[in-house]
Formats: sequence, C-alpha cells, structure tokens
Amino acid sequence: MQGRQIKRCGLFSLTLLATFLHCSCLPHSTGGKPFPETAKEIASYTKVAKSIIDLAVYGKAQNRSYERLADFTDTIGNRVSGSKNLDLAIKYMFSALRKDGLENVHLEPVKIPHWVRGEESAMMLQPRNHTMAILGLGSSVATPQGGIEAEVLVVESFEELKKRQKEAIGKIVVYNQPFIGASKAAEVGAVATLIRSITPFSINRYWMGHNDPMTTACITVEDAMMMARMAKRGQRIVVRLTMNAQTFPDADSFNTVAEIIGSEHPEQVISLLNVVIWDVGQGAMDDGGGALISWEALSLSKVLGLRPRRTLRTVLWSAEEQGGVGAQQYFQLHKVNISNFNLVMESDLGTFSPLGLQFTGSAQARAVMAEVMKLLKPINTTTLEEHGEGVDIEMWMDAGVPGASLHVADSRYFWFHHTNGDTMSVQSPIEMNLCSALWAVVAYVVADLEEMLPR
Amino acid sequence: MQGRQIKRCGLFSLTLLATFLHCSCLPHSTGGKPFPETAKEIASYTKVAKSIIDLAVYGKAQNRSYERLADFTDTIGNRVSGSKNLDLAIKYMFSALRKDGLENVHLEPVKIPHWVRGEESAMMLQPRNHTMAILGLGSSVATPQGGIEAEVLVVESFEELKKRQKEAIGKIVVYNQPFIGASKAAEVGAVATLIRSITPFSINRYWMGHNDPMTTACITVEDAMMMARMAKRGQRIVVRLTMNAQTFPDADSFNTVAEIIGSEHPEQVISLLNVVIWDVGQGAMDDGGGALISWEALSLSKVLGLRPRRTLRTVLWSAEEQGGVGAQQYFQLHKVNISNFNLVMESDLGTFSPLGLQFTGSAQARAVMAEVMKLLKPINTTTLEEHGEGVDIEMWMDAGVPGASLHVADSRYFWFHHTNGDTMSVQSPIEMNLCSALWAVVAYVVADLEEMLPR
Repeated sequence: MQGRQIKRCGLFSLTLLATFLHCSCLPHSTGGKPFPETAKEIASYTKVAKSIIDLAVYGKAQNRSYERLADFTDTIGNRVSGSKNLDLAIKYMFSALRKDGLENVHLEPVKIPHWVRGEESAMMLQPRNHTMAILGLGSSVATPQGGIEAEVLVVESFEELKKRQKEAIGKIVVYNQPFIGASKAAEVGAVATLIRSITPFSINRYWMGHNDPMTTACITVEDAMMMARMAKRGQRIVVRLTMNAQTFPDADSFNTVAEIIGSEHPEQVISLLNVVIWDVGQGAMDDGGGALISWEALSLSKVLGLRPRRTLRTVLWSAEEQGGVGAQQYFQLHKVNISNFNLVMESDLGTFSPLGLQFTGSAQARAVMAEVMKLLKPINTTTLEEHGEGVDIEMWMDAGVPGASLHVADSRYFWFHHTNGDTMSVQSPIEMNLCSALWAVVAYVVADLEEMLPR
Repeated sequence: MQGRQIKRCGLFSLTLLATFLHCSCLPHSTGGKPFPETAKEIASYTKVAKSIIDLAVYGKAQNRSYERLADFTDTIGNRVSGSKNLDLAIKYMFSALRKDGLENVHLEPVKIPHWVRGEESAMMLQPRNHTMAILGLGSSVATPQGGIEAEVLVVESFEELKKRQKEAIGKIVVYNQPFIGASKAAEVGAVATLIRSITPFSINRYWMGHNDPMTTACITVEDAMMMARMAKRGQRIVVRLTMNAQTFPDADSFNTVAEIIGSEHPEQVISLLNVVIWDVGQGAMDDGGGALISWEALSLSKVLGLRPRRTLRTVLWSAEEQGGVGAQQYFQLHKVNISNFNLVMESDLGTFSPLGLQFTGSAQARAVMAEVMKLLKPINTTTLEEHGEGVDIEMWMDAGVPGASLHVADSRYFWFHHTNGDTMSVQSPIEMNLCSALWAVVAYVVADLEEMLPR
C-alpha cells in the first residue's frame, strides 16, 4: 500500500464483502432501531465472537492463514501485472478457494497493464567508479540503446528543482528526499530521474513504485545520501544509466471472487483487500497477508457453520499496484448496486500485530462499529480510529459506503514495502491468527446484524 | 568484526598505541605506587579530560571524525585485500595523517592474500524458478565452467548434516542455521554449500564471510527459510550455482602507522583498531569508524598540545578481514618489544553510541582503568566490562598485555556487518564524537600516567 500521493501498480486483490439487500428500493438504512437496542443486539454476539477467536487463535485454524500464505508465496513467487506468474496466482487462488468449500467462487474479467522489466544498471563514473543498486519504477520507459551517460544534479525537493531548473537540462536528476513519489524532472529537461528509496530504514534496499512514463529508477537511501555529500563538496558526479523495460498492450486478467452467501439477503458486497505484489519480493506482506486473512474470514465462518444474514464476499484484485486497476473496474461494474454495499473492508498495511480498525462513516455507523469492536476484547484489539483508508475501497467510501481498514502496529511496513525483502520472513503466524480473528468477527457480526450500518 | 568462530579477512587496520619504555630491562611494572596515590593522580586529569571531551563533542573537532570518514569512504569505496582500492586507501590515509600533522607517519610492508570475486549467480530451478541473491565467501573456489546444477539438502545444523551425510553426496548443502560460520559439507561429499546469512535481521541481505577454500556462498535468511519450508513439504529443490572467483599469489601491501611521540618514553605501542572492509559495502562501520576514532584520538591530543609521557600510536591494518593478516605480521615483527606495550586498544564492533570499555588485564590494572573511566562522567560512558575482545589485539592480550575494546550499544551491528548496507548511513556524527572523546581520554591519560599499567 501507500498513501494517496504514491501511485501504485500491482497484481491482484481481495475483497471481503458483507452486505445487506435492505429492500433494493431503499438507498440505505438510517438506523431505524434505537441505539441501546442495537448495542444489546451486538453484545449478544459475545459467545459467537469468542468461538471465532478460539478457532483462529487457539483451535484447528491456528497458523492456517500463515501456512497458506507461505505455500502461496513459495509456490508462485512474485506476480506482476501481465505476467505468467499472475495467471498462475489467479489459478492457484481460484482452485484453493473452491477446494476450501467457499461459495460462488468465480472470476470476473479485467484488462490490466503489461509492463516488463528489462536489464537495468547504473554505474557512477565520477568522482569514482561505483556500481549502484537500482530498480526501475513501474511503467518507466527505456533509455536509448547503450544507456545514458550524464552529469547528476542532486536536489532535496521539487521546490529546489524548480529553482534550479536551468541546471537540470540534459542531466540526471537525483532526488535526495524521503517520501517523494512522483517525478517532474522531465518537464524541466532532465534526461532521467533517480529517486531515493521510500523507507525510514534501509540496508542497501531499493523500492519499487509506479511512475508516469519516463525514465525513472529508484536508488538506495545510502547512494542518494552519498551523492548529496559529494555534491555538497562540489564534486562532479557522472552516472551511466541503462534501462530496457518494455510496455505491451493491456492484457486480459481476472478478479477472483468467493462468498459465504447470506441467508436472508444474499446480494452483495463488502470489504476490499489488496493482493498487491510487485515484480520484486514475493508480496507476502503487501498484500498476501491481507488476501489471506480475508480468505480466512470466510473460512472461519464456514468451519463454524455460521451463515450471516447478508453475504460475505472476498475479492482478490488483479493489478492492484498498477493504480488499483482491478478494484477500479470492479467499482465501475458494481456501483449500480452501491445501496447494497453495507461495509467495505481493506487490509493493505501489513498483517502485523493488530490494534483494531480505522473507520470512515457517519457518527451513527461509528457508534455501531464501536460496539462491534468490544467483541474483540479477548484479543485486546478493540480500538476504533478515525479514517479508514485504502486505495481499493476509497471510491466506495467517497460514494458514502462505510469503510474499515485493518489497523496494525505497522512501523516496519516501509522497511519491506515493494522490495525483495517482502517475503514470508516478515510475517508471524501468531500475528496473522489475531488479524484473521479480528477480520472474521467484524465481517460476520456486521453481516448478521438486523439492520445495515447507517450511512 | 566477529567472534572467534567466524573467520575474517579484509583490509587494513588501525592501532592506537600508548606505551612506556619503563627502563628497557624491566619486563613490566607491577604497580609500585600505592593505589590511593594512583587514583589521586588519575583524578588530577579531570580538567584535561574535560578539555578533550569539549573539543571532540562541542568544540572545533565536532563531527570531524564523521566527516573524515565520509570523505574517505565516499572517495575510496570498498577496499578488499589485494585490490587497487586498498592501495588507494593506504595512500589516502598516509597523506591524510601527514597532512594532519601527526608524527612518524610511515608504512610497514606486509604480504596479503589476493582473491578476486567473479560473476556469481544462483537460480532455483525446482520447485519453481527463483533468482537468489548470493555472495561467495572470501577465498571460495570457483564452480566448474557453466556452474553446478544439483539437488539441495537443507540442514538445520552440522549435527544434522553428519547424521544425513549419505544424503549429502553430490548435493548442494543449505545450512538454515543462524550464526554458523564454517562449512564442512565438502568432507561428506557435497558439491557446494550455501550458508544462511549471519544476521538477526534481514531485508534480503547477504553476508560476506571468510572461508576455507571450497565452493561456498552466503544466501539470504529469506531464501534459507523458504528452502527449509519447501524441504519440510517434501518438495524437491534444484539449484544452479555459478561462481567464478580467482585466487592469485599474495600481494604486497602496508600497515599504516602514525604517532604522537612520547615526551619521556618515546618508544611504543598500544591500541590496535581494525579498518576492515569487505568487497561489498563501504566499510564505514566495519571498521572505518574504528580507524577514524583512533586517528581522531591522536588529532585531539595534537590540537590541545597534549604530549603524553609515552607514545600514542595508531596503526591501520592491511587485510584485517583475511584473518587479521596485517595485525599478525605486525605482532610477529614487534613482539620483541612486548614489554614496552602498555595497553592495546581495538574498536571493531562499530562506533555506535558508546557505553565504556571492555577490558582484559590483571585486577590491579582493572582498578587503574576503573579510575580512568571516571574521567568520562561528563559523557556518561564510564562502564568497564569484563573481557576486552578483538581479533587484532588478542595475540597481545594472550601474551599478557592489557587490552581494551570499545563497548558500544551495538545491537544493530550484525544488520550491516559485511554487507552492502555498511555505508555512512549507518554512522551518526554525534555517536562518533562521543566515541572519539572516550578513545582519546583513555589513550592520553594511560599514556601519561607515571607508571605503566600493572600486568
């Protein structure tokens, strides 16, 4: 994941959907029931919530989401948009969700970008020879045959670049700025851009972002800082940059859907999670973990024979990291039924030790969610913060659908985000058990309440 | 650095030497002076110690060791044994030490190993294609032309390998064991060994160690753990490994020496620090930091016009990481004067936030050192732990010379040790100021006391 400023691209994504066909003519519930009654209704789920938690954390399902994620990532590896591995990943998930006994498992066609990374290298030639670790940003265009050899201009910000734009002509611009996502250097006549890796912590790691089509690569924090020091000393820096990526016509792909069909109101849609995986790393954290706990939320209900009034739906996005492509197409296709979407949920900041939820919705809806969170007291994950976020659910939230995102102790997230470090070694089975329990309790209870969440 | 089990190789190293020619016929002092008098004598250095600390931490020398280290590592980069960069590094340091006005700056010839890394790659072919990040261990022998393609045997320990030695024949042995240094797989008929990177924390990083001559590479923690999971699932793992390193005849090199010559007893030798730098990373932490604070210890005395009774000597080792080659040759050459070595000091665990010293010596010597440490109260680095350690001073300590090593809050050390992550980004100017102050106070005061440290 990342904040809104940072564009992204990727692979395929997951949605957990719990909704309520509240008479298809009513746009949405306004919370007809007096609140004390709703609170009492929610409290009556204490035992059910406990049984879900017991199953996920101490029972037969203990470590299941972790082990399934390990098998998935070890088997498939990375799965970038347009790749054979993405096709394999979709087939793998489609079979696995069916085999798990989930309902209405099916694929929905989407068109996705097809960009293929080529050979990439950057060599510092002055003031000394130094091979740099780089990673071209997604959608980056290739350098001319043989690469570019140019002097470097180091800037600390876009503002500095604007001030020094005459100096940038014909140069390779190096942004030594933490957390800059976009590159505007082409506008001022630079031949390429090198962006400092987005992370608060680095061990020679590069980060893979999405990009407007130009020649842009990510470099390590270490190299960015070294070039800044060299520039400050007045040293001339020359780099030879070679990038050979190719962009092909959009490819055919699928969003993958699985459900527990509602007993009273079988229509609908909630809870969108990303299965974002770049072509580096294995996307265990971003967002294999999110996908797996959304699968697990349905599985836990199924094992316990819990069929909610409304439908729980998990959707695995294709090409989430290429600007939420699969999620956007899903929204366009299904927004006609928006009144039936009760709650959208997304986990895209890692499945680390969970704290609770972040939530976007009306004050009335928040009051209901606060009661639901009390059911999670056995695992001490009852916090309900402001502002649910997630690239794949924001269009639903902007259109008025309540939205929740998993809130985790995520300080390590950007250490691994979009790097080769995003592997199973980042994940903990215990943390994933807790995330799965939280996710399943919230999804099941909200899907089973007598009324939809007020808007 | 590393513990004794882990062999090492490297580059060039630094010695800070403060000694006392205590009448050349006397083997060593036994502490003729009553202890209360010595304690009083040491306390009289409070003001001098304060002036050293002020200069290093708040005064004109603030950040100097950091900036000099940045210039050195940015200019030279890595500097493996036998390389052109090592020659450049020695020339750079020789000129810089002279330019700084230090005394008796000279080079002492040594013979060092000359091993050159070649192309290296490892590709998993089964159960799926996966490009692995590897780094051949120093002195590793090349694979046959075209590489080795073999099945993998994953073991968790050398004990497990011994039990399963029949299975190892013709295979590539993967050690999924934290902190294993050596490889014995060749003895049981394996064709090559892949060792899990030595670190408590990894972001797809590989570690560079030294090795008995066989085909051995380091792999990431992430890949080692993945192969262990695959093996547990009963999956067949096949890897193609290619390594093209070459070993040449030993090369000519130099230890680099600088001094502040003692006013009363100009002979001698203390305090050996490593300037260890592998061919990956830039050796800012291991052991550029140690080298720079040893240089700085002399510089601070010089700026303040402090000339101790005995000589302060800094020695920069060549090829420290190839088994302490430069340090060993220095010992062989100078051990004839061992009675004149008052104290050997080594900083090879990083110049992070300092806590104090680790010390090896007699109870009487320890008592003296404890008084010296009190002078460091202004920067709260007064602890004196047991057991000074350091590959480059241990032969002196084994022969009875008191030895001290810098004790730092070093929990991050093995995150970066012998990796591409060992760059200036690991260092902090404030921490280096404190290390320099500690180092300079201890070296100066011990060199200036009326008597040598008791043995």
